[in-house]
Amino acid sequence: MNFAIPTPDTALTPRLQHKIDHKTKPPGALGRLEALALQIGLLQGSETPELRQPHIMVFAGDHGAARAGVSAFPQDVTWQMVENFLAGGAAINVFCRQMGLGLTVIDAGVNHDFGRRPGLIDAKLGPGTANYLEAPAMDVETVRAALARGRELAHALAANGCNCVGFGEMGIGNTASASLLTHCLTGQDLATVTGRGTGLDDAGLARKRALLEQALARGDRPTDPLQVLAEYGGFEIAMMAGAMLGAAERGMVLLIDGFIVTAALLAAHALNPALLPYCVFAHRSQETGHRVQLAHLKAEPLMDLDLRLGEGTGAALAFPLVQAAVNFLAEMASFESAGVSDRET
Amino acid sequence: MNFAIPTPDTALTPRLQHKIDHKTKPPGALGRLEALALQIGLLQGSETPELRQPHIMVFAGDHGAARAGVSAFPQDVTWQMVENFLAGGAAINVFCRQMGLGLTVIDAGVNHDFGRRPGLIDAKLGPGTANYLEAPAMDVETVRAALARGRELAHALAANGCNCVGFGEMGIGNTASASLLTHCLTGQDLATVTGRGTGLDDAGLARKRALLEQALARGDRPTDPLQVLAEYGGFEIAMMAGAMLGAAERGMVLLIDGFIVTAALLAAHALNPALLPYCVFAHRSQETGHRVQLAHLKAEPLMDLDLRLGEGTGAALAFPLVQAAVNFLAEMASFESAGVSDRET
Repeated sequence: MNFAIPTPDTALTPRLQHKIDHKTKPPGALGRLEALALQIGLLQGSETPELRQPHIMVFAGDHGAARAGVSAFPQDVTWQMVENFLAGGAAINVFCRQMGLGLTVIDAGVNHDFGRRPGLIDAKLGPGTANYLEAPAMDVETVRAALARGRELAHALAANGCNCVGFGEMGIGNTASASLLTHCLTGQDLATVTGRGTGLDDAGLARKRALLEQALARGDRPTDPLQVLAEYGGFEIAMMAGAMLGAAERGMVLLIDGFIVTAALLAAHALNPALLPYCVFAHRSQETGHRVQLAHLKAEPLMDLDLRLGEGTGAALAFPLVQAAVNFLAEMASFESAGVSDRET
Repeated sequence: MNFAIPTPDTALTPRLQHKIDHKTKPPGALGRLEALALQIGLLQGSETPELRQPHIMVFAGDHGAARAGVSAFPQDVTWQMVENFLAGGAAINVFCRQMGLGLTVIDAGVNHDFGRRPGLIDAKLGPGTANYLEAPAMDVETVRAALARGRELAHALAANGCNCVGFGEMGIGNTASASLLTHCLTGQDLATVTGRGTGLDDAGLARKRALLEQALARGDRPTDPLQVLAEYGGFEIAMMAGAMLGAAERGMVLLIDGFIVTAALLAAHALNPALLPYCVFAHRSQETGHRVQLAHLKAEPLMDLDLRLGEGTGAALAFPLVQAAVNFLAEMASFESAGVSDRET
């Protein structure tokens, strides 16, 4: 599949940097926010970038392997948490309300019939993936369908005026899937990228690692992203990867959450690395494998709050920093306009 | 001076922790926000803490030593930046507007006559401190007056309904003063706690260190906080220390910004360590000495954004995280209320 992602024009860099440097502050004094302002200015091709109708997309899906014991929670929690999202009671709802973010939940393949519901997009590819301990999670055609649907969803969001989207997920067992994807796409040891997920104890973690070794023993390590997603992916992860690529095609700011979202980004990045300049890395998850993913992408997240919840909560919490970067660029006075003396040098 | 700071009643800990643990998320999954929710619940003595009328207080003052070359900027920038605050064009204005924070600027001793101005409190103790290279910056009676005035200002803010206050400062030369205070109050080497401030180059930094050694050579290292503030303090720093103690007396949440604000906190802490449970450390500044201060106070800040601007900008940027901690505690569903299965264990 081809994704047509524009390359930001860096010709604007000197003008943007000049504008940043002449705000009433010592050069560089706003630290990471200055780099963020430059990045967003460049990707929007504007000295006056704006964030419009910022939104969180939460992709939900079930994993056949969840019943084998890779998670501390039962599979039913996936649909129960989707109901919690629709009722407004989950952490991501609280943070979206606080930050003024829109929220859409996408059923990419939850093992439950929700019927038609406001706030829920039915993009179900099946009642959860196959159990990758025994067979590929899905076939490559389904991966393509997931990517295409995700792309459509991102394009529709852009068509509605949104230019900043954060990604989140819900799916019992998807930390295990993300570990397998990360192993395949970065080449790092499985043990290094496999953590406690929602809270496995030592015995649970050992069992999870053994099960994932068993899943990998089905064949050679795949490295082609479509193949990797087919073998070990989740419907929600594959669809999110398509949405990321589609959002980058539309020049949107992509807010990247934690371990599972970054696993989707690894796949998207393998399909087209041109999406990377559009990504803002919200936070460093407590889940150990996230460090490996970030190093692979040479990414430095904005925050480190020991989060490991998912749902896009880290992306939502980082949004005010992204807005602050855009705001200081738009609203701060310059030395000249404010009548403030510049340095004596 | 005695500051009557109540000790938070930890008897509420089990009930608050139970409430946090039964929200619809794995235990601990909200990381630092969970500890923050517990802290604020305890200091308000409530299972339903609230942040009311959050506010930033920016204390401004001039330093006699500034003309000796301890800063990259001329002293006039202090009053020019106060004008910028009053006109709404500085970074702290932008961030306060974005985060919904009130902002008050206090003239604790700027070398400029502002007249009566909306948004500016005239608490001027003099036209800048004396040059501590030659003599104490102020006498101990002036330190007492600064602390008393700061306390009054915090009490007045509390009386107006505010229960969460962030601290910021403006004063050319005050990074140098903060280095001297930090050296005296922590016992760490002067060189370790002396950095580039608003952006000194290598030669400027060497000159600043030599000047500060010269200031210290006037006598033995003072360790009593009143004496330390008298020798090397600033009007804005001493008044802020009083405001911190006064805010803790009223049970407010204190948002601690960067290097200079934390120097004021070191002095306040030396006067009464009971204010520490009321403090939320917003960020780790790029200014090197901030690490020393944080280690001395055993504090772990929420963010690390390489900021070194002051004005309370870090405190303002961290505010949404503090609000998010309070909000998840208030608004998230519990496993029981949402009908979500808890762990199988």
